[in-house]
Amino acid sequence: MKVYITPEKSTWKSIIRRPTKEGKDLREIVDRVFKRIQNEGDLGLKHFTKEFDRIELKEIAVSRSEIESAQSLVDPRLKEAIQVAKKNIEQFHSNQSFSESAVETMPGVACWRKSTPIDKVGLYIPGGTAPLFSTVLMLGVPAKIAGCKEIILVSPPNQEGKIHPAILYTADLIGISKIYKVGGIQAIAALTYGTETVPAVYKIFGPGNQFVTAAKERATLEGIAIDMPAGPSEVLVYADDTANPVFIAADLLSQAEHGIDSQAVLVSTSARIIQETEQQVKEQLASLPRKEIASQSIANSVLIEVPTLNDAMELINDYGPEHFIVMSKDEDEVLARTTNAGSVFIGHYTPESAGDYASGTNHTLPTNGFAKAYSGVSLDSFCKRITFQKISKEGLQLLGPSIEIMAEHELLVAHQRAVSLRLKSDHADS
Amino acid sequence: MKVYITPEKSTWKSIIRRPTKEGKDLREIVDRVFKRIQNEGDLGLKHFTKEFDRIELKEIAVSRSEIESAQSLVDPRLKEAIQVAKKNIEQFHSNQSFSESAVETMPGVACWRKSTPIDKVGLYIPGGTAPLFSTVLMLGVPAKIAGCKEIILVSPPNQEGKIHPAILYTADLIGISKIYKVGGIQAIAALTYGTETVPAVYKIFGPGNQFVTAAKERATLEGIAIDMPAGPSEVLVYADDTANPVFIAADLLSQAEHGIDSQAVLVSTSARIIQETEQQVKEQLASLPRKEIASQSIANSVLIEVPTLNDAMELINDYGPEHFIVMSKDEDEVLARTTNAGSVFIGHYTPESAGDYASGTNHTLPTNGFAKAYSGVSLDSFCKRITFQKISKEGLQLLGPSIEIMAEHELLVAHQRAVSLRLKSDHADS
Repeated sequence: MKVYITPEKSTWKSIIRRPTKEGKDLREIVDRVFKRIQNEGDLGLKHFTKEFDRIELKEIAVSRSEIESAQSLVDPRLKEAIQVAKKNIEQFHSNQSFSESAVETMPGVACWRKSTPIDKVGLYIPGGTAPLFSTVLMLGVPAKIAGCKEIILVSPPNQEGKIHPAILYTADLIGISKIYKVGGIQAIAALTYGTETVPAVYKIFGPGNQFVTAAKERATLEGIAIDMPAGPSEVLVYADDTANPVFIAADLLSQAEHGIDSQAVLVSTSARIIQETEQQVKEQLASLPRKEIASQSIANSVLIEVPTLNDAMELINDYGPEHFIVMSKDEDEVLARTTNAGSVFIGHYTPESAGDYASGTNHTLPTNGFAKAYSGVSLDSFCKRITFQKISKEGLQLLGPSIEIMAEHELLVAHQRAVSLRLKSDHADS
Repeated sequence: MKVYITPEKSTWKSIIRRPTKEGKDLREIVDRVFKRIQNEGDLGLKHFTKEFDRIELKEIAVSRSEIESAQSLVDPRLKEAIQVAKKNIEQFHSNQSFSESAVETMPGVACWRKSTPIDKVGLYIPGGTAPLFSTVLMLGVPAKIAGCKEIILVSPPNQEGKIHPAILYTADLIGISKIYKVGGIQAIAALTYGTETVPAVYKIFGPGNQFVTAAKERATLEGIAIDMPAGPSEVLVYADDTANPVFIAADLLSQAEHGIDSQAVLVSTSARIIQETEQQVKEQLASLPRKEIASQSIANSVLIEVPTLNDAMELINDYGPEHFIVMSKDEDEVLARTTNAGSVFIGHYTPESAGDYASGTNHTLPTNGFAKAYSGVSLDSFCKRITFQKISKEGLQLLGPSIEIMAEHELLVAHQRAVSLRLKSDHADS
């Protein structure tokens, strides 16, 4: 851990610099895979699943019987927990449904918006050592509430050519039935172009490694929307002397165990808290199963003592943390002054893992400073808003002259005439 | 114009295919400009303004006196029209402000969202023959309402090294004072990296040619957000036999005069309407100042007769028009069934140009089928939403066990411990 005691403001930027990404250019391989999936469809999917994942894929789609047999393979206590999380996530995201009044900007000029679901969405669920059923909840639940017609789930198969039962159970619980055993670049390409088996979608969601990230970037060039740009996960804890170093250390380590490029930052007005947290991290780390990973990212973690809350807020908003934990008697002031963050966890009994799993908020959040311009995934992410306007004949008489003169000055005479011809007409209003 | 009488459904896709973009790969030149602006700052801006625009730029920033002298150079009638439009746009976008209740997903588990402005935004206003002061309104007004702290406007200078007075007048009216005389790739690079004079921003808005579009794509790779992907403008009119072919033709031509790649589509259940519209387009086109441009895009325009409203709606939602004009006695049904569109114009007296300029809705809209996944620019585009949660000690006792078991099954033991350690603790709740 790197400890900084009241560092000069001019050094903040370098102290909280995020670990730099590998600059590897994956465009060539992504282009190659995309081209082949576009041309060969399912055949290409099987080819790359063999080339990259070393698996001979017989069936790309998960069958109904595979989904049903997953039921009995999942620990009943886990099923119950997933159901609790699902209910909370449903409740929080249902509350986000859009409603807005119409506006009459001038007499006879009515304008309003309506929200409609994105018809076809793709959810990417990473494979690897752990089955990320929590991400199935975080993406699947709002997609269902939004009313997306086609929800396509893709996830790389394991060595037996299967998807983990906890993922299948969760998908089935939500009501997602179109599940495909493909991962990596080829899965994103399939969602982009469609194959004989995997339907094309309009927007792709979900985390992934550097290949998936590069493939999602590539998909945007084909006009496919994505949830948000990706980056390593991170947490920033603000703690004053009312905080508990045991809790702080546990939260920093939660972040650190994600990956070696995860970033954990503590900002505190208390020298004692920093000192004790450092000690606690060491102790807790020693018995952590993923300590190989966590110790590498903890080595890069940063503990910063700042003189005042003012300084802390300036530093925090400048960083724009993905996860921001506040353990302070001044929490109200901290909240009021938080302008850049993905998700904020308030108080001594609100660990980040609550939001990662089950409290109801979404865990798909802007990282890498993207919180300065992006929101996390929400119900809105699965919808788009259409504007409507209806102008009466009298309304156009009022508004029309302004349109005519503006169009004329932008040298768009057909735009002007679309008004003039109507103003001269005796066609019935409706 | 291409007329199709009740074409087979299987041919729809090819009939309404959008004009294909030039496949030119601009990445090389964009990379070159970005690198040089990153290294050289203002010096690079001056270099490329000379290389690309053939202008020796003395000052990059527009001075206060330039802004003030613009006042007297703008036609007073235009000023008045811009003020009318501004008021309407303000009214419609103010109505979009975010408000949402908190949710207690379980006793002691409170979750909510807050909207905060994006601190720094860049508005790109194209140069060229016409001064797009309307785009200054459409981007500047919601940025101001959102409360963005720094609003940076860039626009290429004309041959005298100046920005058109109507643009300066409009910017000043809104309260935008940071205006820079740079355009093209170099302007987007400046907004991405910042130079000695031009501040870096977190999100870039605005239309532009293929170079600007490629540069915005490049900016996203540097973590800068953009408003939406770009494409040629388009309109789709749905008209039944209550419609007026004079109005339809005027609206199709409004679209056609934008550029040779603009697309204008008429879908109608009436053979007579199609026939008369074709005739009207010819007549109105003849006297249009921009008929060189309009006649090329009109040549590619499509008039389609369909047997029923059902067919029309299927075709329209499949196309996802940027602008969708509805002139029909069945307008209520059409609206209820519209799922993919950027902005909808309803009735005989609601020309697209109303929304382009002055009714209050935004004219920055998803084109090229992006309406299937993207919304147009709105107040939301200048804000992001932060989620918050606060869990009491009792709340964590209820929720904690679900988190623990989920984390355990995702093999994230530090996540589990962040709960367990708290559940065992006697630290005060607050």
